[in-house]
Amino acid sequence: MHTYLDCLPCFLKQALEAARIAGVDEAVQKKLLNKVLKEITRFPLTASPPEMGRIIYRLVREISGKDDPFKEIKKRSNQLALNLYPKLKKRVRNSEDKLLAAVELAIAGNVIDYGVKNSLDIEKELEEILGGDFPSANKKIFEFEEFRNDLEGVSSLLYLADNAGEIVFDKILIEELKELNKEIVFALRNEPVINDALKEDAYDCGIDKYARIVSNGSDAPGTILKFCSDEFLKLYQNAEMVISKGQGNFEALSTEKGRIYFLFKVKCPVLAKDIGCELGSMVLKKAGFSNGVNCRPTSDE
Amino acid sequence: MHTYLDCLPCFLKQALEAARIAGVDEAVQKKLLNKVLKEITRFPLTASPPEMGRIIYRLVREISGKDDPFKEIKKRSNQLALNLYPKLKKRVRNSEDKLLAAVELAIAGNVIDYGVKNSLDIEKELEEILGGDFPSANKKIFEFEEFRNDLEGVSSLLYLADNAGEIVFDKILIEELKELNKEIVFALRNEPVINDALKEDAYDCGIDKYARIVSNGSDAPGTILKFCSDEFLKLYQNAEMVISKGQGNFEALSTEKGRIYFLFKVKCPVLAKDIGCELGSMVLKKAGFSNGVNCRPTSDE
Repeated sequence: MHTYLDCLPCFLKQALEAARIAGVDEAVQKKLLNKVLKEITRFPLTASPPEMGRIIYRLVREISGKDDPFKEIKKRSNQLALNLYPKLKKRVRNSEDKLLAAVELAIAGNVIDYGVKNSLDIEKELEEILGGDFPSANKKIFEFEEFRNDLEGVSSLLYLADNAGEIVFDKILIEELKELNKEIVFALRNEPVINDALKEDAYDCGIDKYARIVSNGSDAPGTILKFCSDEFLKLYQNAEMVISKGQGNFEALSTEKGRIYFLFKVKCPVLAKDIGCELGSMVLKKAGFSNGVNCRPTSDE
Repeated sequence: MHTYLDCLPCFLKQALEAARIAGVDEAVQKKLLNKVLKEITRFPLTASPPEMGRIIYRLVREISGKDDPFKEIKKRSNQLALNLYPKLKKRVRNSEDKLLAAVELAIAGNVIDYGVKNSLDIEKELEEILGGDFPSANKKIFEFEEFRNDLEGVSSLLYLADNAGEIVFDKILIEELKELNKEIVFALRNEPVINDALKEDAYDCGIDKYARIVSNGSDAPGTILKFCSDEFLKLYQNAEMVISKGQGNFEALSTEKGRIYFLFKVKCPVLAKDIGCELGSMVLKKAGFSNGVNCRPTSDE
């Protein structure tokens, strides 16, 4: 997804929010914003929003001198989600369609995102998730049957992680995929950016029991292929199927085709308009819809 | 009120919104945003937000080549409010306390503001105003008795207008003030800025029947004294009492003392925090509270 003009004010807002979380004083916040203003001016709108995210959070790290301003937030998110884990498992266990229930939870877990919404009352939202059903009105783009069918034809998957905390919800889905005898590679950002999960988060949440944990080699808040490591790109190119979690990964990969399923909650009005659904929607969509073509993978893809 | 860092993303958002209303294409919108980004970088936070508003809307006029991009919106707002006028009058007529009812309506009319909230469903909000009461929970800062008392001691008032459409609600209050034998001078912006009312709007809404219509000599979306004409400043300095409508006028004059009453709806979270009340509150407040001192006017003020 390219960057919209509406993204520009939001970049500034995210930078300010991050500077505050990094705990720097107002003069330093202003210094950061001035640098971000300059970067926004020269940022090409053809690039995807996470490309600016990468620039912003590099500046935050550089100016605050803090390598990982969201470290505590990530730890808390993981712990919060791990506390919910038994309830999440129970919900899946009691479902008629376990795969569907696990997919829904994995998408619902995407509410844990400090990059989009500040002061999000995560705990409250998560409790709501567990309390109710997922109404079909919220699932306008939800290609579950196609997902299930495609899944049958593959023996392995590359799973692109998004946020700390959310990965516990991913773990639930990964466990179901393991039940279906799929081999999973779970890929995370290489360096701290916002509250995006790192390899250490995957280990902390015990995902290494079910999947091979790898880094994508990049510090962008979205899988921007040109910034990923060769090692990761090999995995990506050879993957039988890809599960891509979150808006950042969608924005970075939306022009890719074929064997990728995007799972995310729509948390931004610009993206909602781009894909043609409501804010708050749960999306499960195969790649190829951003350019109107839902292409099947070919052997050399 | 000084400019907060949170205002900076909002400046950018307002510029984009105005460029769209001016009907320029995306390339021109980007050109405008780049200029605004540069201006934001050098804008001193000690200045009040309407000072940046003045810069932004000058750029919008310059780049779009349109002298008054909000002209049609203003006309529609005036007409919409004029259509409601009989209902507004009836509401005041049926009230036990006519002055209070007129003050409440004048504040409620401040919802008509394209500078703060885009795509505001004005018509719906206005209908709601007419349908219900104004709950006291929304009036935490509402110094009506002090206002009424101060009013008794004066024979004339300077009334600082805010938006088109809203001025019909002001007209209702002005009529009540005339009933109390007050002479009114009604001051408006000198040049188009957002949907702020101009002299022509005051005439179109028939306010000249009840008040002397003057310009403040400035094109800022708030009464920034250093940009006002000498003629206006004389009126301001000699005014027995000032009624200041809207957030822009409040932001510009909040450090002034004494004889000014600010009437506005709180439409921005930064301002809400600054004055310590909820978003959506109706405020009636005497000047002097921004610095914690509610000063009485002195003879040389």
